[in-house]
Amino acid sequence: MNQQLEQLLKNAKAAARVLMKMPTDEKNKALLVIADALDANVEGIIEANKADLKAAQDNGMSKAMQDRLLLDEKRIRAIANDVRKVATLDDPIGEVIREMKRPNGLVIKQVRVPIGVFGIIYESRPNVTVDIATLCLKSGNVCVLKGGKEAINSNKKLVEVMNEAVKDLLPVGTISLVTVLDRSIVGELITANEYVDVVVPRGGAGLIQFVVKNASVPVIETGAGICHLYVDKDADMDMAIKIAINAKIQRPSVCNAIETILVHKDVAEVFLPKLVDAFVPTVQLKGDDKTRAIIDCAEATDQDFHTEYDDYIVNIKVVDTIEEAVDHIFNYSTKHSETIVTDNDEAAAYFMDALDSACVYHNASTRFSDGGEFGFGAELGISTQKLHARGPLGLREMCSFKYMVYGDGQVRQ
Amino acid sequence: MNQQLEQLLKNAKAAARVLMKMPTDEKNKALLVIADALDANVEGIIEANKADLKAAQDNGMSKAMQDRLLLDEKRIRAIANDVRKVATLDDPIGEVIREMKRPNGLVIKQVRVPIGVFGIIYESRPNVTVDIATLCLKSGNVCVLKGGKEAINSNKKLVEVMNEAVKDLLPVGTISLVTVLDRSIVGELITANEYVDVVVPRGGAGLIQFVVKNASVPVIETGAGICHLYVDKDADMDMAIKIAINAKIQRPSVCNAIETILVHKDVAEVFLPKLVDAFVPTVQLKGDDKTRAIIDCAEATDQDFHTEYDDYIVNIKVVDTIEEAVDHIFNYSTKHSETIVTDNDEAAAYFMDALDSACVYHNASTRFSDGGEFGFGAELGISTQKLHARGPLGLREMCSFKYMVYGDGQVRQ
Repeated sequence: MNQQLEQLLKNAKAAARVLMKMPTDEKNKALLVIADALDANVEGIIEANKADLKAAQDNGMSKAMQDRLLLDEKRIRAIANDVRKVATLDDPIGEVIREMKRPNGLVIKQVRVPIGVFGIIYESRPNVTVDIATLCLKSGNVCVLKGGKEAINSNKKLVEVMNEAVKDLLPVGTISLVTVLDRSIVGELITANEYVDVVVPRGGAGLIQFVVKNASVPVIETGAGICHLYVDKDADMDMAIKIAINAKIQRPSVCNAIETILVHKDVAEVFLPKLVDAFVPTVQLKGDDKTRAIIDCAEATDQDFHTEYDDYIVNIKVVDTIEEAVDHIFNYSTKHSETIVTDNDEAAAYFMDALDSACVYHNASTRFSDGGEFGFGAELGISTQKLHARGPLGLREMCSFKYMVYGDGQVRQ
Repeated sequence: MNQQLEQLLKNAKAAARVLMKMPTDEKNKALLVIADALDANVEGIIEANKADLKAAQDNGMSKAMQDRLLLDEKRIRAIANDVRKVATLDDPIGEVIREMKRPNGLVIKQVRVPIGVFGIIYESRPNVTVDIATLCLKSGNVCVLKGGKEAINSNKKLVEVMNEAVKDLLPVGTISLVTVLDRSIVGELITANEYVDVVVPRGGAGLIQFVVKNASVPVIETGAGICHLYVDKDADMDMAIKIAINAKIQRPSVCNAIETILVHKDVAEVFLPKLVDAFVPTVQLKGDDKTRAIIDCAEATDQDFHTEYDDYIVNIKVVDTIEEAVDHIFNYSTKHSETIVTDNDEAAAYFMDALDSACVYHNASTRFSDGGEFGFGAELGISTQKLHARGPLGLREMCSFKYMVYGDGQVRQ
């Protein structure tokens, strides 16, 4: 293993033993100190970020990607305030989830504990560095961060500022950044079962698939979102249009935006022209044959229905029945978020029971699939796997549990 | 992919859509029918099992392993009764775990749902085939079973009997057995992310490590148990001996039996001779230098402290402090189960807080780390990883959850 990485991981594992028992007030104090340090180092952080931006320009990075990379004073102060908000959230650690008294007198408490060492692999946005580090800290976890090389100067500076601020409060290794740029380092991190308890990839589909395929450390898969809106035959048309606009146009680049609208045939002739009015020319429409018999748009291929555009493009399909809508979603969804618009509660119940996506909605936008909107205060990401946790990952979902069993000499019969 | 496997997996995935919504009474009916069918087919099952036993003898399998493989009338009827017991357990599916009402009026329900398709890879014991199939059924999950080749005839017969019994009650693919004997089939099963939601290896360390290293499907790691008993300076000596006997000798071959006893130096001279009286000659003792200065025994090497004997052998180490005991356990434990015997509540709290094993005990035997003993009614195994679930995996722990969100037209601001 790379020596820098091995040393980081050894420190992280040692730090995890301290963090798992750290009192809430000590963790909160460290968070507030970090927030203050970010505010106090705005200039230095901007300077480091400029080096990344310069390299990005030299490498011809797109304007949109450059914007993701940018840290200005406003953004840095917003990041600092987010850290202060994390300090105000309830500490999930130590909560007794369940308590059972057995006939033999044993008392079994299921208690929430940290997971331990998080390995986080992410791409360009440097704000993720602070978000993850502080969410891990609040939940008693330790993080080993591997950010994208395009943000290396920003990330180094942010971690340096955080670690300098907490050097008397937290053990070495609580927050660490892997600065080795060799891509093979990711492979080493995600197979370091001896040191790392969970790996979370945050980024594009390529990164996520690489991690899922190659990790031997348990992975929480996040982010891929091919989400659906189904407009039922009993839908309120105005509500359906309002939700379509919100779920597609408000912020198309995020994972909880929809990629496909399914419309029941009985309302397609009313709904689709309204959709054209609302979406065109902002959004490019792609439709199946039945859609194109009603409105003028490009053809949606099978591949299109499998595509997460994250852009001003939407697929449309007319279905004969709600069952056909559910079948389509079952086959094309990434199991993130789906919504039905209908005034028919029976139809809504069928749709929500029959689908196995992380979040299923009745008469609401899929854009609510978010830790903040769910009331979790913050989130690590949106899980699209069924193991461990699904949907928005708040502080609780960043935890494990253990059983603490109290006896007075019991032995098994 | 192997064609037989691909067909099984397609059927399993389709069956999972039905199972996830199946009412409790229908699942219970199927369980009772399976139990009756096992009772009615005792002779046929014994006959199939004889073929496996004959092959085992011809291949020179150890008597202990042959006993694991054996199915006689008593064992088959016990398996059938275990199935009836599963029918009586509470159905975990559909339970509202948490309900949140948001300021915007959205109602968010976190509801327990099945995980979907379980891939189970296990070794010799054919009773596992029925145990797993019926626990999966009760929890609304589908199973694809890959048993050991030494039990292939028994497993085929058991699955045939179960499937024949439920052919009008459950969809094809609810219970299936991979009968391809080529070892590469395991590699295909544990990387079939399109079809399989979770893989659970049940068997020896070699099998578990192979699955952990090579799976891209999420894994629940079970079973490895290097468990510890720490006899504190404030321990009741009689209780410590009683728990040592139970945790080591009652059933040494299981994962919740202890492999190492740590003794505080202040009580070592009293405790160790008592331990010799209780253990020798049944159990072989291996000790560190400080132990061997007090009692006569073989030397325990560093490798010994890393070994899961599952046998009548125990390591002993004398520690100067409780901190040293905790450090040792941190370094050598498989994070399964550890116990402290002490009359000092402060010492117990320190021990239980400082360790990050799945189950930590005060004044009780580690042998209670078991789904039945925890009151779960049954178990899939004992998880030693921190993701998803830890300790005994009951029906609840075989589930995921989803969020069902109810609105009246809400869109995100």
